[in-house]
Amino acid sequence: MSFIEQIIELSQMQVNQISPKAIKLAQYSLLDWLICGFGGTNEPLANKLRIFAKNEAGAEVASIFGGFKAPARMAALVNGATSHALDYDDTHFGHIGHLSVAIYPAALAVGEECRKSAKEVVEAFVIGAEVAIRIGINLGSGHYNHGYHQTATSGAFGATVAAGRLYGLTKQQMRNAIGLCSTRASGLKSQFGTMGKPYNAGISAINGVECAQLAALDFISSNDGLMGPHGFCATHGFDLKSKLPALPNPSQMFLFEDNKYKLHACCHGLHAMIEALKSNDLTGLTLDEIGSVLIFTHSKWLLVCDKKEPQSGLETKFSYAWLAGMTLRADDTGNDKNYTDGLTRDPQLVQFSNKVRVVASHELTDMQVKVTVTLKNGKEIHVAHDLSIPVPLEILREKLQKKAFSVIGDKGKQLWNSLEEIEDLSAMDIGQIIVS
Amino acid sequence: MSFIEQIIELSQMQVNQISPKAIKLAQYSLLDWLICGFGGTNEPLANKLRIFAKNEAGAEVASIFGGFKAPARMAALVNGATSHALDYDDTHFGHIGHLSVAIYPAALAVGEECRKSAKEVVEAFVIGAEVAIRIGINLGSGHYNHGYHQTATSGAFGATVAAGRLYGLTKQQMRNAIGLCSTRASGLKSQFGTMGKPYNAGISAINGVECAQLAALDFISSNDGLMGPHGFCATHGFDLKSKLPALPNPSQMFLFEDNKYKLHACCHGLHAMIEALKSNDLTGLTLDEIGSVLIFTHSKWLLVCDKKEPQSGLETKFSYAWLAGMTLRADDTGNDKNYTDGLTRDPQLVQFSNKVRVVASHELTDMQVKVTVTLKNGKEIHVAHDLSIPVPLEILREKLQKKAFSVIGDKGKQLWNSLEEIEDLSAMDIGQIIVS
Repeated sequence: MSFIEQIIELSQMQVNQISPKAIKLAQYSLLDWLICGFGGTNEPLANKLRIFAKNEAGAEVASIFGGFKAPARMAALVNGATSHALDYDDTHFGHIGHLSVAIYPAALAVGEECRKSAKEVVEAFVIGAEVAIRIGINLGSGHYNHGYHQTATSGAFGATVAAGRLYGLTKQQMRNAIGLCSTRASGLKSQFGTMGKPYNAGISAINGVECAQLAALDFISSNDGLMGPHGFCATHGFDLKSKLPALPNPSQMFLFEDNKYKLHACCHGLHAMIEALKSNDLTGLTLDEIGSVLIFTHSKWLLVCDKKEPQSGLETKFSYAWLAGMTLRADDTGNDKNYTDGLTRDPQLVQFSNKVRVVASHELTDMQVKVTVTLKNGKEIHVAHDLSIPVPLEILREKLQKKAFSVIGDKGKQLWNSLEEIEDLSAMDIGQIIVS
Repeated sequence: MSFIEQIIELSQMQVNQISPKAIKLAQYSLLDWLICGFGGTNEPLANKLRIFAKNEAGAEVASIFGGFKAPARMAALVNGATSHALDYDDTHFGHIGHLSVAIYPAALAVGEECRKSAKEVVEAFVIGAEVAIRIGINLGSGHYNHGYHQTATSGAFGATVAAGRLYGLTKQQMRNAIGLCSTRASGLKSQFGTMGKPYNAGISAINGVECAQLAALDFISSNDGLMGPHGFCATHGFDLKSKLPALPNPSQMFLFEDNKYKLHACCHGLHAMIEALKSNDLTGLTLDEIGSVLIFTHSKWLLVCDKKEPQSGLETKFSYAWLAGMTLRADDTGNDKNYTDGLTRDPQLVQFSNKVRVVASHELTDMQVKVTVTLKNGKEIHVAHDLSIPVPLEILREKLQKKAFSVIGDKGKQLWNSLEEIEDLSAMDIGQIIVS
């Protein structure tokens, strides 16, 4: 079966064939996405996008964070960007991108429009996410390194399939939707550090809704937009091998099960170190007792999150030295409001940062870290962490609950209570939570 | 001055500095675009897009061909695709794309929304077109050959600048708009032969409106979306030289003046041959008197428009043999309705097609042709044509008037009469013509 046919089969998969663990994780992703959306609601870019939506107006069928109802396309755009504003959303390292912010806005908007249940929205999301992951892996790291932002590019195919599933597209219509997405998907990494980065998540979501809506009207596109001549992969996939990587059949395994959640409001590259430093072996130490910290990490992170002298609260989120100090003195690294500009001048952290050394290790993956903490009394403590080891669902649940309270306070508690009963909810109920 | 600064300067150019010839041509492009839009109004894809727009609804500020008013973004999308449905719109061979269908829908929609004059819409268009051409030339043929459709990609930058000019963006806002466009622009050639091709023109126009609207709200993007690291050219420009091609300063020359108009409802690759065969030296001959026709053309056209046995009316539009016969017997090649499926079985043309031979010549550009017609009596007649030689404006005007009558009949006549007085019209007046 060709790759496009595999994707079309996956898009039509029966609910009882979807991995239950993937569905459970997709529910956590929905909660995590809502936390991020509420957290981003008052960011400047979210306000601008709500004005943009209000000016355009239109059929009030889908809910916008902190706002009102709008057409599905517009809600997808605004919610995608809003929920990525804090950059606190989930990541899939195989796909090299953020799944929830690119796909949930499309799935929820179409779910509301089509009066679907919350459960159907979650199922459409997890199918879309699985599609995005598989396309992302095909495109490979060359695509990302060349300058494309997978969140926006392979994400758009995921959003298309999720939206298309909720619109009830036939196989042929799904093929057209994917063809249209191949000519519509876009998104560059050069936007990082600007409002353009969260915009990319919104672009993915609106492209998905638009392509699915047009396909539902039998708009015709190319037969294989993904792998055909001059298709998306041929034009955008820079290390595309003649043979695609062998991936397990979705009926055996959902790659979505490897999805990772940010539990600290900083760069995902720092998360393995933070988890390592939270080891019991280091509990109770004061920063003064520590002589040096030697961190071994994957070389890619040295270019991303090793800021030696951060100049702003935002830059501390990309600093091994700062996060090491914060973690060891038990700051709440899960609360994004703790990363203030003043933190760059915190005397304890400034002094401690001189004790931290970061070294690239070829033995480690981008999800692993090893740390040697040497105390002033000469004792060496070795800790390590590997983000790729799955966290049991019950523990993940607890951690995400804690994150919800950190980021949006009581609203987070309410959110968990509402969504623990997801079987009883409609997409419109979730929409109601979003606008309220 | 860096390229991005040149583009920003160009976007802010005073009206009295714009080449008057370019403005005159831009007025003809407006007429030509309207002819194509009306011609495409009843195509299946145009009907689908009007349903799509109607479902979404919204602020009724911009007019849609054969329809109603809609938000500016939506009108740009629908009108871009509708006007490219017949593929009968203008082409710029340097930019390698179609300018009017990608930029006029954005300029007119924003012009209507902002209550601008028709003259201001034309001026914004010609500035946007000049931007698109210069970016298209930088991207070069490698971009096109790799699979990108310049109409959609560099076209989107033109649409952004045209829309941004009408919204009155500052230089900094224009820089942000271009940055946003760099992450939003998309469009693949793999769509050719499907509704995805005209959709690409619509994508260009809607992307332009969206990026300009967001920039007007001070949405922040990267500083140099075009030439910066991981910017649009670096990611999408496959034969980008370290040194950009030297282009004349716009204050000295508008490259838009080389814009070409289709006067025959077939592939632009056949136009030079048709013009050559309309020579006085061949007037009055019957097909029976001709023994053979030998056509020398650029090699690229052999892969595009040398169908030996066309199977449909659409395929005859890509056949040297058919168009040679039609031209020599004085068929109206300007009327798109003449290209019927029955034409493939026309006995005279079928017989004549056997006398036609097409040969690639390295001495010719893609706008030149040489033809040797040998009569049965042994006499050889040599004719040639070069599309790059500018047609005097007065002659172009006559030919476009004739095209208007061919494509949309009396409505074409009315259109010319209305628009000859463009100084007295508002953008909304043109919108009124479009919906009526």
